[in-house]
Amino acid sequence: MSSLATAVTAALAADTDRLAAYLHLQTVSAQHKQIPETVAFLNRAFQELGAQVQIWRDVPGSNPFVFATFAAGPTGNAHKTVLFYNHYDVQPPEPLAEWQSDPFTLTTRNGQYVARGIADDKGELMARLSAIKALQQSGGLPCNLKFVVEGEEEIGSPHIPQMTQQHAADLTADALIWETGGKDTADNFQVTCGAKGILCLELSVTTADKDLHSSQAAYADNAAWRLTQALASLRGPQNQIKVAGFTQAIRPLTKTERQAVAAMPLDTATLKAEFGLKRPLIHADPVTELVNGTTMTINGLSSGYEGPGVKTVIPKTATAKVDCRLVPDQDPHELADLITAQLQQNGYGDVQVNVLLGEAPFRSDLSAPFVQTAVAVAHTVYGDQVRLVPNMAGTGPQAPFFKALHAPLIAVGSTWAGSGPHAPNENVRIADYQQGTLYTAKLLAAFGAEA
Amino acid sequence: MSSLATAVTAALAADTDRLAAYLHLQTVSAQHKQIPETVAFLNRAFQELGAQVQIWRDVPGSNPFVFATFAAGPTGNAHKTVLFYNHYDVQPPEPLAEWQSDPFTLTTRNGQYVARGIADDKGELMARLSAIKALQQSGGLPCNLKFVVEGEEEIGSPHIPQMTQQHAADLTADALIWETGGKDTADNFQVTCGAKGILCLELSVTTADKDLHSSQAAYADNAAWRLTQALASLRGPQNQIKVAGFTQAIRPLTKTERQAVAAMPLDTATLKAEFGLKRPLIHADPVTELVNGTTMTINGLSSGYEGPGVKTVIPKTATAKVDCRLVPDQDPHELADLITAQLQQNGYGDVQVNVLLGEAPFRSDLSAPFVQTAVAVAHTVYGDQVRLVPNMAGTGPQAPFFKALHAPLIAVGSTWAGSGPHAPNENVRIADYQQGTLYTAKLLAAFGAEA
Repeated sequence: MSSLATAVTAALAADTDRLAAYLHLQTVSAQHKQIPETVAFLNRAFQELGAQVQIWRDVPGSNPFVFATFAAGPTGNAHKTVLFYNHYDVQPPEPLAEWQSDPFTLTTRNGQYVARGIADDKGELMARLSAIKALQQSGGLPCNLKFVVEGEEEIGSPHIPQMTQQHAADLTADALIWETGGKDTADNFQVTCGAKGILCLELSVTTADKDLHSSQAAYADNAAWRLTQALASLRGPQNQIKVAGFTQAIRPLTKTERQAVAAMPLDTATLKAEFGLKRPLIHADPVTELVNGTTMTINGLSSGYEGPGVKTVIPKTATAKVDCRLVPDQDPHELADLITAQLQQNGYGDVQVNVLLGEAPFRSDLSAPFVQTAVAVAHTVYGDQVRLVPNMAGTGPQAPFFKALHAPLIAVGSTWAGSGPHAPNENVRIADYQQGTLYTAKLLAAFGAEA
Repeated sequence: MSSLATAVTAALAADTDRLAAYLHLQTVSAQHKQIPETVAFLNRAFQELGAQVQIWRDVPGSNPFVFATFAAGPTGNAHKTVLFYNHYDVQPPEPLAEWQSDPFTLTTRNGQYVARGIADDKGELMARLSAIKALQQSGGLPCNLKFVVEGEEEIGSPHIPQMTQQHAADLTADALIWETGGKDTADNFQVTCGAKGILCLELSVTTADKDLHSSQAAYADNAAWRLTQALASLRGPQNQIKVAGFTQAIRPLTKTERQAVAAMPLDTATLKAEFGLKRPLIHADPVTELVNGTTMTINGLSSGYEGPGVKTVIPKTATAKVDCRLVPDQDPHELADLITAQLQQNGYGDVQVNVLLGEAPFRSDLSAPFVQTAVAVAHTVYGDQVRLVPNMAGTGPQAPFFKALHAPLIAVGSTWAGSGPHAPNENVRIADYQQGTLYTAKLLAAFGAEA
């Protein structure tokens, strides 16, 4: 075992109590719980490692941001800086009955750490601090480090765009390490370089001031029919999005990106079994779609009588929630306008389109030296089982960071396919946690050693 | 004033306490309230007028039916019998806050009787008993009478088909007077000769065992989209029903029916204002549609996330409630099969069709002598303001009665356009109640006097 590996093992052992204490804080942002306690905890934890800490409270309406900086050690590279983005908030623990142990008590079971936040992403931040301790005890930090830790990721990071604008000068760095990551369904370690964007809409239509008796269907229009027909006009039965210009801004994958996609596994048989999918997959090439396909999803429908039995009513209103996952260079607000225009064009100008959320997509240049270093270091820790992923299928506020930094980004971490980040019994495998911590330490060392 | 009119006035005055006592019973069938008390009350009320009463408890699962018979008086026609169908149950009184007086206390306000059931149809039954008392005190009953009073009309009359089969021999009559009726928006007294049928369906589709994360929309199908597209395939944006064979059984209106329809008023400006309709009427000839048009209505939609804000989920299931109003000779169960076949044909065989309720349409022959007598007598009470209505736009279990009786049917009563039968402050105008009682007495007299 290398001396760095030994130091990582020692640091993790020494830091278990801190990990447990951090997970014990019930920092549920949706319920605004224990925010000040958690900010105070992080302030202390960073300071104990020698960081300079600022608590940013200057973004109106936002939970505080914890900002910490570490200078490179005496033999480190003082000209290079890595920024870490993490979040200190977690999802609500519900449904409580499905947890096999207390959600806010770090529990070891079957070689796993189990607790709310261990995967997403309190565990990741503590692993990064353990990597820093190991580096400090192995000759000092190889480069400058910055951390920005927010408290609203689980409620959609509403203040990240504002914060990254206000603090662009503080955040400057040569590379960005995103909050979490880990292994895919085939246990390949992933170096992920972006995220899809998202557009969330509410479509609603009102046809009357009161619900009517359904005998009045002889003459009165129906909000549920209007909505149903309007939605069906936007997307074909084979899932073709029929909104003019919707896919126009999609950037074709580069050769490097296509190669990365070709190496990504997707075990569709396992997926079908795990989720009990009743229908054929809707794309012949789901991996490419996961990386570079846009989507239009009805998240929910609501209208009229939804209880048991019969109520012969004509609903006065109907509402649908819709989200679209976006890929570079689709712009959420442009797409909202295109959808509104298409509804008008299709004869459904009475359907109101309300934008609930818009986040831009982002993908790093896969050929950036930092990305290549991240992959090379991954091979030293994980052997052949390393995959470069152009972007995740999910969404995160990466685009505003890129706008402030203009630096490459990777998402890496300690999770596995069974981590269940928002589910009961959220977990990471302890071996993965140790490997992930060693990987962070080695990546920083390699990055600092570069010219 | 004729002596019959004087007798009606006297009977109504004498019977006010009985009316109040009947309305005071909280016979809400949906909540199974005070059924035995109400049955006992009616038993006494019929017996006090000299009827033979049977309480039928022989239909499994049903609330009891009260069956009462009166023989024609000494100078009456013992060869002719009228059957009255009524119900002793009422709608729930909720929302209570909107009542200006206690729902179960008969209240006189602005020339109206106000109480739950005064219009639909406890008030009607009591008015009929007052008409009987007036006839008895004016020389005796002009013909035989039968009453069948059920206790489940407000929950869809589920046991009427069974009861009318089991008791066909008891029910025999030459004419049938339906539970309620009254005046239209232009204050014309209506003699209504039928009801639309109804088919109530639940359409549901399941695409997975679990809700999925919407990033999985890159490959996974969506129950809400399946349902939306399946529904849209059944009905065009201009409200065209696109189910093969759906309208095939519709019987064209006869000349007499067309003349009746041509004389029916529909004040579309008032309708638009009262219900706040936002869209143009969906048929150029709404009156004909109300009488002889079939409909397909989405009563409710439910799928996935319906709360505030955003939840980026792919719903595993989606459900719609749908009802179709039917006209002679559409058969509800045949139509359910046609809809199922059309969904299959359109590629939506995964959408499950569950029949919740099916009631056949019914329309009497408008030229039947009883119908003509009913219209002629109406003119003696209401002057010119009388309209013959081939059938109501709503639904009632008339077809099973016709199957047992093969006799003409009319629905007549004391309501007006503002009675709000299922709403708070349900009411009838006292003058209408008195006129309606006189009408019943005169109709029976005229019917008994016929050859």
